[in-house]
Amino acid sequence: MNITDIFEYLGTFAFAISGIRFAAAKRFDWFGAYVVGFATAIGGGTVRDLLLDTTPFWMQNANYLICTAIALFTVIVFRKQIVKFNRTLFIFDAIGLSFFTIVGMQKSLDFNQPFWVAIVMGIITGCAGGILRDVLINDVPIVFKKEIYAMASLFGGVIFFICLQFGAHIIISEIIGAVAILVLRVYSARKNIDLPQMKDVEDDNE
Amino acid sequence: MNITDIFEYLGTFAFAISGIRFAAAKRFDWFGAYVVGFATAIGGGTVRDLLLDTTPFWMQNANYLICTAIALFTVIVFRKQIVKFNRTLFIFDAIGLSFFTIVGMQKSLDFNQPFWVAIVMGIITGCAGGILRDVLINDVPIVFKKEIYAMASLFGGVIFFICLQFGAHIIISEIIGAVAILVLRVYSARKNIDLPQMKDVEDDNE
Amino acid sequence: MNITDIFEYLGTFAFAISGIRFAAAKRFDWFGAYVVGFATAIGGGTVRDLLLDTTPFWMQNANYLICTAIALFTVIVFRKQIVKFNRTLFIFDAIGLSFFTIVGMQKSLDFNQPFWVAIVMGIITGCAGGILRDVLINDVPIVFKKEIYAMASLFGGVIFFICLQFGAHIIISEIIGAVAILVLRVYSARKNIDLPQMKDVEDDNE
Repeated sequence: MNITDIFEYLGTFAFAISGIRFAAAKRFDWFGAYVVGFATAIGGGTVRDLLLDTTPFWMQNANYLICTAIALFTVIVFRKQIVKFNRTLFIFDAIGLSFFTIVGMQKSLDFNQPFWVAIVMGIITGCAGGILRDVLINDVPIVFKKEIYAMASLFGGVIFFICLQFGAHIIISEIIGAVAILVLRVYSARKNIDLPQMKDVEDDNE
Repeated sequence: MNITDIFEYLGTFAFAISGIRFAAAKRFDWFGAYVVGFATAIGGGTVRDLLLDTTPFWMQNANYLICTAIALFTVIVFRKQIVKFNRTLFIFDAIGLSFFTIVGMQKSLDFNQPFWVAIVMGIITGCAGGILRDVLINDVPIVFKKEIYAMASLFGGVIFFICLQFGAHIIISEIIGAVAILVLRVYSARKNIDLPQMKDVEDDNE
Repeated sequence: MNITDIFEYLGTFAFAISGIRFAAAKRFDWFGAYVVGFATAIGGGTVRDLLLDTTPFWMQNANYLICTAIALFTVIVFRKQIVKFNRTLFIFDAIGLSFFTIVGMQKSLDFNQPFWVAIVMGIITGCAGGILRDVLINDVPIVFKKEIYAMASLFGGVIFFICLQFGAHIIISEIIGAVAILVLRVYSARKNIDLPQMKDVEDDNE
């Protein structure tokens, strides 16, 4: 188990916890919570793999199912204590976002996709799981309304690309891209920075 | 038309009827009801086939489209009488669940997937159609909140696996697995057995 | 840029505008509006390409991303003026529906699918984007409740098939099919023609 595995399972765990807690707020049963947690954790990578026409990553390794089971157990047993760890879980989630984005981009480049496709795939890998979670619990996807989330993926993807263009080694470029996502995500959440909202036709207050 | 065909079309018919009735309760038009019925009937197997990277089964045979058309016609013409057949339709639906689960597992094993993937694919084949139905009618998926449904798929899949491990013939193992799903599904519905519900952070009544 | 390109980008633009305006009505942020616009524009073709097991068309050409960006810019800048162009946008949308339907059918036939699959793929190409849009904004899909939309796709697909059966050249058949969709769509919208609605069990007014 090397450092990238650790990031991957931290991210998977945090994403699964997020899905399970949303499901708990809607009083889903254990099975429902497990499915929503799993879908949140693997949804983005699965959409990416279907678009790239390759076998979804979680079918090659049972660890993602196990990781989700641990997350479910954690939420059930430590239900009251877990709110104290919200800040830690937020950091894990941000690590997941930055890690999944870069992994998604790397995989797309390995499949000989152009860089603009890789950036889209990075955003999908990082964000589609959360969108799927919100569709399954029948809410409007949060990522469409609040905070800098997908924009952080996009920003890191572009940074990654620029680093490569300037001749940086791919590993170095990936690390810089991932750190860029993490910093932008954490900074914008702390400062409550949102993207501009769309206005409806009737709105007058421009 | 052999015995497995009969099970398959009974299940398809029952799943389509379920989708069409939910759509009718939301006052969809005929086209909407047809699409929801079709998605309920073929959604699970389609997700499975996309994950296994093979052509969706319903594209090889127009019978599923025809079966859904018959279901739509049945609901439109026998709207008032159909409630009397709820018990029969429930049995058909349970047959569909057990049949689709085992078919999904069998197909995954044919694609050289490990057994744990086959069990997941069995659950997806049996349950994803109903989830897709509820997403399309903009409801929270019922399977996440009520009754023993997906758990019956999981249970039957494990029974199937255990039988194989003990050296039983694959056909025998499949029949035992399918019967296990059917019995657990019907028994739990009759006894109103639900899975434990998740609790939210604020809940005090543990 | 030939005539089919013009139709394609008019349709893409109109579909993206429709998604972005729905997102604006729900106060999504710019990113959310962009994603919903893009999903509306490319959703149908993407589902088709996944079912046909080929690389989604928008991954081969960045024009669809750019077209959606122009649509987003248009809605943000011309928010108040855009309502005056509703009729023009409706025509663009109808062009998109008819064009995407025929393109979807043509692509399915190129993949050696039988004609009934091609008709289903045509409907999916024309309509699945709008369904995905409504799922993402957490509404009941409009196409399931109102107006002649998917039925126009179906009608044009059958006309296309009949023309081919009578020995017409494929290009001629496609044009006749596309015009049939456009005419039925525009005519039914102008005359407020809807499909019959499903009735619920309790309804007495037959």
